[in-house]
Amino acid sequence: MSIQTIKWHGNSVKIIDQTLLPGKVVYLEFRDVKSFWQAIKKLQVRGAPALGVAAAYGAYLGIKGSRAKDHKAFMRELDGMIRFIGSARPTAVNLFWGLARMKAAAGRNKDKPIPRIKEALLGEAHKIYEEDRAICRKMADHGARLIKNGDVILTHCNAGALATADYGTALGVMYRAKEKGKKFRVYADETRPLLQGARLTAWELMHEGIDVTLICDNMAAHVMGLGKVTKVIVGADRITRNGDTANKIGTYGVAVLAKYHRIPFYVVAPVSTIDFNMARGGSIPIEERHGGEITTIRGNMIAPKGVKTYCPAFDVTPAGLITAIVTEKGVFKPGEIKKIR
Amino acid sequence: MSIQTIKWHGNSVKIIDQTLLPGKVVYLEFRDVKSFWQAIKKLQVRGAPALGVAAAYGAYLGIKGSRAKDHKAFMRELDGMIRFIGSARPTAVNLFWGLARMKAAAGRNKDKPIPRIKEALLGEAHKIYEEDRAICRKMADHGARLIKNGDVILTHCNAGALATADYGTALGVMYRAKEKGKKFRVYADETRPLLQGARLTAWELMHEGIDVTLICDNMAAHVMGLGKVTKVIVGADRITRNGDTANKIGTYGVAVLAKYHRIPFYVVAPVSTIDFNMARGGSIPIEERHGGEITTIRGNMIAPKGVKTYCPAFDVTPAGLITAIVTEKGVFKPGEIKKIR
Repeated sequence: MSIQTIKWHGNSVKIIDQTLLPGKVVYLEFRDVKSFWQAIKKLQVRGAPALGVAAAYGAYLGIKGSRAKDHKAFMRELDGMIRFIGSARPTAVNLFWGLARMKAAAGRNKDKPIPRIKEALLGEAHKIYEEDRAICRKMADHGARLIKNGDVILTHCNAGALATADYGTALGVMYRAKEKGKKFRVYADETRPLLQGARLTAWELMHEGIDVTLICDNMAAHVMGLGKVTKVIVGADRITRNGDTANKIGTYGVAVLAKYHRIPFYVVAPVSTIDFNMARGGSIPIEERHGGEITTIRGNMIAPKGVKTYCPAFDVTPAGLITAIVTEKGVFKPGEIKKIR
Repeated sequence: MSIQTIKWHGNSVKIIDQTLLPGKVVYLEFRDVKSFWQAIKKLQVRGAPALGVAAAYGAYLGIKGSRAKDHKAFMRELDGMIRFIGSARPTAVNLFWGLARMKAAAGRNKDKPIPRIKEALLGEAHKIYEEDRAICRKMADHGARLIKNGDVILTHCNAGALATADYGTALGVMYRAKEKGKKFRVYADETRPLLQGARLTAWELMHEGIDVTLICDNMAAHVMGLGKVTKVIVGADRITRNGDTANKIGTYGVAVLAKYHRIPFYVVAPVSTIDFNMARGGSIPIEERHGGEITTIRGNMIAPKGVKTYCPAFDVTPAGLITAIVTEKGVFKPGEIKKIR
């Protein structure tokens, strides 16, 4: 994988600035936590798994220079740092998950000298990073077996390297299939309103030498009707016990279209995405975003001033429209995922 | 109707520049056919019925200064002009319909002196304009009967006043229903890539005091899934003898989604949209537009440089997905429209 979304670099954390993509490819290096906090806040690094890694390295950046003389003072400093980093994206679950992991690692090592605790914290951050990579690779291995020579895959939003520390989920499957020498093409939905498909997915796939064609979301039906699509592969934000899947707005429509055209529809997501406590997708709260995301693009008004909007960020694809869910533990029919627990 | 899409203005044709809406309301005046050809090509004037009117006034603009000395030379010039105007939008059937009307009018008057033929041509263009207004009103009357109090209508693209010389087709039905005191709401798909829904439909409906909510195209499925939509009403660019309907890209997807959610799907279009010589939609050529329409918005690149794109301007909705077609002659099941001839 030549795209490095986030990586530890000796004494600093290095990220690709996602706010400048696809226009400019700029890597940023952060040696202090304050500037890195800004980067998280400004979405220069984003994507659920990548934010878990960012949280961990961020916490270490913030504490590595600590001059605390005793353990109590050090732990107090770490707690403050964890609260500080969490405040950059208060609704990003993975950020808090990463921070909790760091706090637990400090707890496990609390009897060691402070320099050893610092080492353990860096070790934990590396572990989170490596775990994400390993999960990506396993999902990719399982999913790549589904791809055949000549396949034409349609994907929606960005479930790629830029959202994780490595391969990504839906796109990881494609990277692995390419490494295995399989020949296939991809249609990428642009994914309104925030255009993750146009800005990120198309860029990633081009960068990795995969044949990608960008279409508007509303062209997917026509392309399917022409018989050009053989598989749909998408990521997931949350999967409930029965296999219902919340993902970027538009995914549900693609799933209905795939069903109508008899095209297999695959979801690729780590087991951590499965919410075993939730029975079905109807209970997933759907975040409504500001209408400005629809009415303006790069500061340009594209709709009448004062127009009413409805801007759901996600939708729920019922299990019945999903052919299979690819995880790091294997490929499951939606009805089978409750067994993973 | 306070919006004037296209109108003859003494010695020139005047249009509202639809590429600047809704940010700016600018009227343009054309005195020569070359610049007017550009306006048709650039979609400054668009919409099937409006294009019939544009074709007629365009042909007259192109021929009114003719210095042809004999009838044969004049007719040859007119034929060339007709081909020229047709080349601005080769798949727009109404453009060719308007041009054929002009050719027939010239034929009927071929024994008159050339200045009288020119007058007859302007007269024919005016007639097309007036007929379009009358047709809009009749379609609106028939269609408004389908709308019930409490309806929530989803529409795609712009089949409104801006597409015609008057009321519009799909939106005309809504204007008439409102005049009759019916209470309903509308969801408008933004309609990528050219955003006719955001720029034109939302603007028109707000302008006429109808409750409209703008959504991205990929949100329609979610809104339908929530049970919020009771009817889909769209326009048409071409209808074949069996009722298959070509309309703005994305319409086919909306029709599939409507079928899945058991929502009635209506097409509103004048009889002139029906191509009685074409048996089915599979024969309709689909115009492919420049990928720049997808990759840039108002001059801003929103996709990677050099990305491959596929940009069909239309898609075809098979008759089986259409509940009924509303014309100026009444409301027909798709299978019945061949009887209209």
